[in-house]
Amino acid sequence: MICSASCRLSRNIGRRDIILRAMSTLEQSKKNAAYEAVDNHIKSGYVVGIGSGSTVIYAVERLAQRVLNENLNVRCVPTSFQARELIIKYKLNLTDLDIDYKLDVCIDGADEVDESLNLIKGGGGCLLQEKIVASCADELIIIADHTKNSSQLGDQYRKGIPIEVVPMAYVPVKNRLESLYGGKIELRLAKMKAGPVVTDNGNFILDWKEFDQNLNWNEVSTKISSIPGVVEIGLFVQMAKKAYFGMTDGTVKVQE
Amino acid sequence: MICSASCRLSRNIGRRDIILRAMSTLEQSKKNAAYEAVDNHIKSGYVVGIGSGSTVIYAVERLAQRVLNENLNVRCVPTSFQARELIIKYKLNLTDLDIDYKLDVCIDGADEVDESLNLIKGGGGCLLQEKIVASCADELIIIADHTKNSSQLGDQYRKGIPIEVVPMAYVPVKNRLESLYGGKIELRLAKMKAGPVVTDNGNFILDWKEFDQNLNWNEVSTKISSIPGVVEIGLFVQMAKKAYFGMTDGTVKVQE
Amino acid sequence: MICSASCRLSRNIGRRDIILRAMSTLEQSKKNAAYEAVDNHIKSGYVVGIGSGSTVIYAVERLAQRVLNENLNVRCVPTSFQARELIIKYKLNLTDLDIDYKLDVCIDGADEVDESLNLIKGGGGCLLQEKIVASCADELIIIADHTKNSSQLGDQYRKGIPIEVVPMAYVPVKNRLESLYGGKIELRLAKMKAGPVVTDNGNFILDWKEFDQNLNWNEVSTKISSIPGVVEIGLFVQMAKKAYFGMTDGTVKVQE
Amino acid sequence: MICSASCRLSRNIGRRDIILRAMSTLEQSKKNAAYEAVDNHIKSGYVVGIGSGSTVIYAVERLAQRVLNENLNVRCVPTSFQARELIIKYKLNLTDLDIDYKLDVCIDGADEVDESLNLIKGGGGCLLQEKIVASCADELIIIADHTKNSSQLGDQYRKGIPIEVVPMAYVPVKNRLESLYGGKIELRLAKMKAGPVVTDNGNFILDWKEFDQNLNWNEVSTKISSIPGVVEIGLFVQMAKKAYFGMTDGTVKVQE
Repeated sequence: MICSASCRLSRNIGRRDIILRAMSTLEQSKKNAAYEAVDNHIKSGYVVGIGSGSTVIYAVERLAQRVLNENLNVRCVPTSFQARELIIKYKLNLTDLDIDYKLDVCIDGADEVDESLNLIKGGGGCLLQEKIVASCADELIIIADHTKNSSQLGDQYRKGIPIEVVPMAYVPVKNRLESLYGGKIELRLAKMKAGPVVTDNGNFILDWKEFDQNLNWNEVSTKISSIPGVVEIGLFVQMAKKAYFGMTDGTVKVQE
Repeated sequence: MICSASCRLSRNIGRRDIILRAMSTLEQSKKNAAYEAVDNHIKSGYVVGIGSGSTVIYAVERLAQRVLNENLNVRCVPTSFQARELIIKYKLNLTDLDIDYKLDVCIDGADEVDESLNLIKGGGGCLLQEKIVASCADELIIIADHTKNSSQLGDQYRKGIPIEVVPMAYVPVKNRLESLYGGKIELRLAKMKAGPVVTDNGNFILDWKEFDQNLNWNEVSTKISSIPGVVEIGLFVQMAKKAYFGMTDGTVKVQE
Repeated sequence: MICSASCRLSRNIGRRDIILRAMSTLEQSKKNAAYEAVDNHIKSGYVVGIGSGSTVIYAVERLAQRVLNENLNVRCVPTSFQARELIIKYKLNLTDLDIDYKLDVCIDGADEVDESLNLIKGGGGCLLQEKIVASCADELIIIADHTKNSSQLGDQYRKGIPIEVVPMAYVPVKNRLESLYGGKIELRLAKMKAGPVVTDNGNFILDWKEFDQNLNWNEVSTKISSIPGVVEIGLFVQMAKKAYFGMTDGTVKVQE
Repeated sequence: MICSASCRLSRNIGRRDIILRAMSTLEQSKKNAAYEAVDNHIKSGYVVGIGSGSTVIYAVERLAQRVLNENLNVRCVPTSFQARELIIKYKLNLTDLDIDYKLDVCIDGADEVDESLNLIKGGGGCLLQEKIVASCADELIIIADHTKNSSQLGDQYRKGIPIEVVPMAYVPVKNRLESLYGGKIELRLAKMKAGPVVTDNGNFILDWKEFDQNLNWNEVSTKISSIPGVVEIGLFVQMAKKAYFGMTDGTVKVQE
């Protein structure tokens, strides 16, 4: 094959352009999902859980618009450092579970959503705070782009189910999990520091990959939570009430 | 009533003497239980979990004697700061779960033991490490004086079942527990610092008092462990294999 | 000596009464100091650091009265779990250093104040947060009863200067301190858990007792802060601007 | 320019080969430095601090060889999770500062070494443990490849001086540092979790970039350590006794 430098260049530009437009479509789909969920599920007087991740940024943006335009009175409970920074940046009212332990709604992203609204969460390592806040909310509403919408957990998301463990127990828990359910259990290593990722709560994360997709997630979740040394698991079973997926055509698909 | 100072004094001495002798009997009963358990359950080559509390001191003392006299080769995994200090003080081989995650036996105390060998543990706030280490052991052997030996949990131990929680979640977990199971849930406050007791893992402790004694502890334990924000519960259900109780008459009662 | 039960009883009541009145005088003196400091140093629009301890309770009480009566607009940064609970209980505006890192004033107690306004703080184990918050304030105002007012540090307060250390370093830091400055260094042990007190930041506390009272506290403080493993020291040198001491006669003595 | 696919391929292979050989030279230089330092500074009976980073791997490898071949009796104190894993992997005797708080030598890497043997450390986020362990050692020996050998700090290492801070204080400390010394202060963000890097001790890291290279590092280090909320700074001033740099020509340059 012979190709001049200029033809290679033009071909590359073509590709990059498509990638950029694709990304922009993905971002647009996140925004659509976030906006629709915020419009449908937040009312004045609400205490709102603010989730973590790239889609949640649009939710907070929209919430701030509504607070301004409609003079909404809402108090926000963050699920992570990032969520807290967003609440502060957009000058929303910050509160926490010591003050407001009953939330009207929690709006959060997910790494994967199956057809029964079971979720994998914790790619960003915030699963513990996310699960605590979600468990205090009357309803958990998920917002995501269409790539998170799977038939079964594991269909598309390959980074595994995160399990937060007490540092002193990571080796025995890893072994226990492998013998209980098979698959591959990996200690998540950091890139910006030596050694393992440390969560905001001082724990380690085990990523459970290549798991059997046909497990009973409710049973699995209860069983793993009971293992001494496990603080929380990034499986959210029967917790989400509704999911909003932004689609490529600009529409939003709602799953209940 | 009229009584001279000297008669009051002699009466008080009499009482104090009885108290001292009573204490000494209690200590002797702890020692008897600890020695018998160490003699029956530890062999050379073993990896041994070392529990926490006043009875465990005698177990470590006895283990050190056996290491010296019988040239036993054992490695010890501590369940707390106190256990670690004991292992170091008695010059036993210190190891941990990163190196030795399969233990042959764990010898630990308990705050109360019921007739099915269910335990309340965590008066000293070490329940998390104790449960992790116990869960890695082939057998968990309990040593205690006779006052810990109850028919039902709550018969004698009044300080409640300790539940270790993530600090940010103590208020919602407290409320969840109260509505789930009733009783009284108290945040454990410190005496040597302002505010709550902080565990060696940086968490808070909720003490669950005045609980219904007829609950199904297995169910309760699994259910509470699954509440987001709960790290561990000081209920050890179906974990202990045997309990050694030192009795007032100098004998040791064994319960299986 | 012969004494009837009733005469003993009446004598005891007499004593208890005196103790109660004495306590009440001490409490009254704390209250006087706290009220005067809050009245003199807090204005509307201020960001206020809320210290820890028994005297600060009166300060928060007074601040809440002023907020109500004078419609003051203040935001409060807590220095401890206790301070946070007080702010929430009295429905004051809670903020933190991520949002408000410049404070107009911080009002806090102390375990001892010398004639140069150097302080020992940390009996309650909150020294780290207290020092961080105080260091962000334009002025640090101390409130205390007269028993905290000494000529030299160590005159009256016998529990030592607290030094917060990283757990893994407590043994070498203890040894370093003993050889540097003498005195007695003790790891602070807990009463409501086994092992050492753990601070709200997950560290241990060394209490430095029987120190030489004629040390240059500025030098000592800098030197000890530089020891690897030391997180903070409960010496506040040249930080307080003014101290209000409640006196037994109901007056408040101001020291600058 | 016209070039066939095969010529491009062969050119690429050529480049990759050079890169591989370059890397191999760098790795070889690390190995040479590490081996020479271990051979010169470790004797039987020693307690040895094991540093962190890519060069230390060779040091542990060499130490394990010497233990085997010369029947050396050494106990090793790790400075990080990684160091601990290495000690376990190579089956060296693991100890810690509670047991052995006086070390004969500590062998560690560095991100940059100036001509007065001042160091920047903490790229891997282990500065606190590294400094604690180094401060307990009779001598600190640095091992590195030649790229770490600068005339002045900041000549080659551009990622900044790491400063470990208590999470609640990162905003005020950032502002304090900027106004004290200028440059750029950045909160280190994680890649494998959302939000900031959390150190093994539960703290955040501020990276201080574009600093004035002519500062008095001794003064700076003391001053910054005294700021409330700063736990440790990755400046090691007057701590290292000797540095071994592996050079491109296979020799090792020693700096004292």
